[in-house]
Amino acid sequence: MLGSRCFGYLRMADKKFESLKRLSNLTTVLENPKIGEVTEVKGWVKNLRVQKELIFADVSDGSCGKKLQVVIPKHLTSDALSYGSSVRIVGLLSKSPRGQIELLADTVNVLGSCIVSEGYPFQPRKTHPPEYVRQYLHLRSRTNYISSILRVRNALTMHIYDFFRSRNYLNVHTPILTSNDCEGAGEVFKVQPDSDETVKAMMQEGKDRDSVYFGSNTFLTVSGQLHLEAVCRGMGNVYTLGPTFRAENSRSRLHLSEFYMLEAELAFCDRLEQLQEVIEDLFKYVFVKTRDTNEGDMWIIDKENEVPSWSDKKFITITYEEAINILMKKGLNVSDEGINKEQELAIVDHCGKVPVFVVRWPKELKSFYMKECQHDNTKVDALDLLTPVTGEVVGGSLREDDYQNLKVKIPSERLNWYLELRKYGNIPTGGFGLGLERLMQVMCNISNIKDTLPFPRWPHNCDM
Amino acid sequence: MLGSRCFGYLRMADKKFESLKRLSNLTTVLENPKIGEVTEVKGWVKNLRVQKELIFADVSDGSCGKKLQVVIPKHLTSDALSYGSSVRIVGLLSKSPRGQIELLADTVNVLGSCIVSEGYPFQPRKTHPPEYVRQYLHLRSRTNYISSILRVRNALTMHIYDFFRSRNYLNVHTPILTSNDCEGAGEVFKVQPDSDETVKAMMQEGKDRDSVYFGSNTFLTVSGQLHLEAVCRGMGNVYTLGPTFRAENSRSRLHLSEFYMLEAELAFCDRLEQLQEVIEDLFKYVFVKTRDTNEGDMWIIDKENEVPSWSDKKFITITYEEAINILMKKGLNVSDEGINKEQELAIVDHCGKVPVFVVRWPKELKSFYMKECQHDNTKVDALDLLTPVTGEVVGGSLREDDYQNLKVKIPSERLNWYLELRKYGNIPTGGFGLGLERLMQVMCNISNIKDTLPFPRWPHNCDM
Repeated sequence: MLGSRCFGYLRMADKKFESLKRLSNLTTVLENPKIGEVTEVKGWVKNLRVQKELIFADVSDGSCGKKLQVVIPKHLTSDALSYGSSVRIVGLLSKSPRGQIELLADTVNVLGSCIVSEGYPFQPRKTHPPEYVRQYLHLRSRTNYISSILRVRNALTMHIYDFFRSRNYLNVHTPILTSNDCEGAGEVFKVQPDSDETVKAMMQEGKDRDSVYFGSNTFLTVSGQLHLEAVCRGMGNVYTLGPTFRAENSRSRLHLSEFYMLEAELAFCDRLEQLQEVIEDLFKYVFVKTRDTNEGDMWIIDKENEVPSWSDKKFITITYEEAINILMKKGLNVSDEGINKEQELAIVDHCGKVPVFVVRWPKELKSFYMKECQHDNTKVDALDLLTPVTGEVVGGSLREDDYQNLKVKIPSERLNWYLELRKYGNIPTGGFGLGLERLMQVMCNISNIKDTLPFPRWPHNCDM
Repeated sequence: MLGSRCFGYLRMADKKFESLKRLSNLTTVLENPKIGEVTEVKGWVKNLRVQKELIFADVSDGSCGKKLQVVIPKHLTSDALSYGSSVRIVGLLSKSPRGQIELLADTVNVLGSCIVSEGYPFQPRKTHPPEYVRQYLHLRSRTNYISSILRVRNALTMHIYDFFRSRNYLNVHTPILTSNDCEGAGEVFKVQPDSDETVKAMMQEGKDRDSVYFGSNTFLTVSGQLHLEAVCRGMGNVYTLGPTFRAENSRSRLHLSEFYMLEAELAFCDRLEQLQEVIEDLFKYVFVKTRDTNEGDMWIIDKENEVPSWSDKKFITITYEEAINILMKKGLNVSDEGINKEQELAIVDHCGKVPVFVVRWPKELKSFYMKECQHDNTKVDALDLLTPVTGEVVGGSLREDDYQNLKVKIPSERLNWYLELRKYGNIPTGGFGLGLERLMQVMCNISNIKDTLPFPRWPHNCDM
């Protein structure tokens, strides 16, 4: 085997190479291989196969799901060269006798050793269950499954920005800290300074510890919508993508205490169909783009990853009433609290696993800011988008834009600023919120939401 | 005046127009004017000039800093058409006798009136002081100054993403909630569920209210660096752009309780110069790009906006010791706590108002995770980038990458996960954090940081 490969060519070339300023990452090396050129690679050893005179190491630098095969003559190796170790390798980029791209090592530096017996939780050639890997959040981006997911998340995020940029939406950084606690979106976290000294120094009469820093009780946001609406009423179409929070005691495969929400607000929007069009376009755009840029990762995440049947089909629209009828025919009774998760998935099944917009919801199931339907004030112009895998992924509505109507419904004086938006130069708007992690689950068939982001937080789990 | 303009052409055309699906926004209309075409514009009236037979309205839709002049025959107007009102106008796009683009209105719908005497805080043709405008956060994106700033912020954000995408950095959503409280970055906010019911339901023996939900005390992040380092050690170059928090009792023009930080961590980085090169490239890239895309806005923000003298100059590098000498020669004494704000600006002045990297800092002034300089273990390989307007904008360092050295310095057992990153397949890394709001201040000469973001939070101010 050694005979068919050319080693030892680098004594002279190495010096010249050192003067190159930029290093190539593995993606570049593999997608645009310069066979016959001296190449430097830095990364981690993912696998080692020892033969008589040669060692074959699969090296990854995390830039893509593929590995580069590095062929190392035995005299260049040491005990430190092991699974999990970090290496710098310089050699000649070549093609193996079978035509595979490989690097013929001339210099091997082990930068950091990795001794599995000293507590490294992962083992070579083994797929660890996600629940096991999740115990090692600080190390799990070294696994194939999680690193592919993080690359998809990065790509998806960028495609979302591209979508809204190409349509001239303004990206707005809505605040995390807010004094609104009453948007009807579930339980909230409260925030206060940790330092007793700070609290003491700022204490005023009549204030309790909770409100001494900001002058009012302060919470982590559950939605940027109300703030988006403020900017929308001066600058047109807007969106935000950022963390939101729920202090629920839920450990389900669909819930997190901290998760990312994409929210958009459309100016001059007075028909639900306008919202639906944007949501459907967005869904299909990011899906197609992410498959384009990260197909390899999507295969690593889900071995049976198939292009879903809906990707070139028009999404289905049904009313809430129709949804209830579908469920009743299946013998599923809907409670006063609305459609539950199992029922959401049953509706999607019924519709041939194509995403379904459920529209025209009973007013009492939805939030105060939603606009009543024309000719039927028991319903609001709201929508949920239901998909395979997760059920609801998007919620949206037209907003109540009449000052007097909203004034009656507003749940707290603290929201007078929101009411006032309708008083001066008001416009009709509508908007939606999309859970980024749930979209990841739908796109890649990831069963547990805790694996869709690098550092998940859920009850009893915030350890780093 | 009426005679030279052609009105009333739209009786027939209006119907045809209604079938057009997409609306043009003002930026498109002004940059790519289709003179002679029927055009629909929706936006807000920024100014009204009443003449004998015609009314001239300046209309903005928030998509750019420019306004479109709309010429309205008096019979189409009503009392509701006033400063601040929202309008839909259909008309013929035309050129004024002076060659200015204008819309000759054929249909005028006032969507939302705006009665200044009913409490609208802004007045036409008046520049309100920023402190005044800041009292009306929910309405201030309707002012020229703030809407220009928000457009620049959007552009700057996108240019930052472009910069890192083109260099194959992975965008990582580092967590907001963390159990780390000891990164030495100042005071923290603590977080807990607001609901007593939730707390009661989750209460376990031996836990206090603060730690019942997550099982440990939980805080808002002061930096994503440590988490970035974890992902960097499996996937290479990474960055994050998101909110960070400080519970300081400061109301200065440079401090916020919630602000955005751009943080990057470079894999296989063992020289401070590698960091400096990326920071300088980034600075110049986003500066040039933002001027390209938003020059008009930058003029609105700062009437004397000039291309800064440093934009085509190499940034200066001095050591901490040299910085102290410069200050001493100016008669400024540096305390044990390091260089203060006034002194930072004096150094920048001394260097001809070109940004200055101050490198090689005394160990005791910097954080535990910074790498000691070779041949001088009283210093660390850290840098601050000082600029005009704000002083420090960027801080960075090489990271201590030796397990044993770090073990001695690590301030808490809770950071054992961070220590463990050095144990398995470790690599040398370095990184930096850049305050997005301070960069905005430098770029646009914005004196108060509270005007660089839509909803600033600072002590006693979190009202919506």
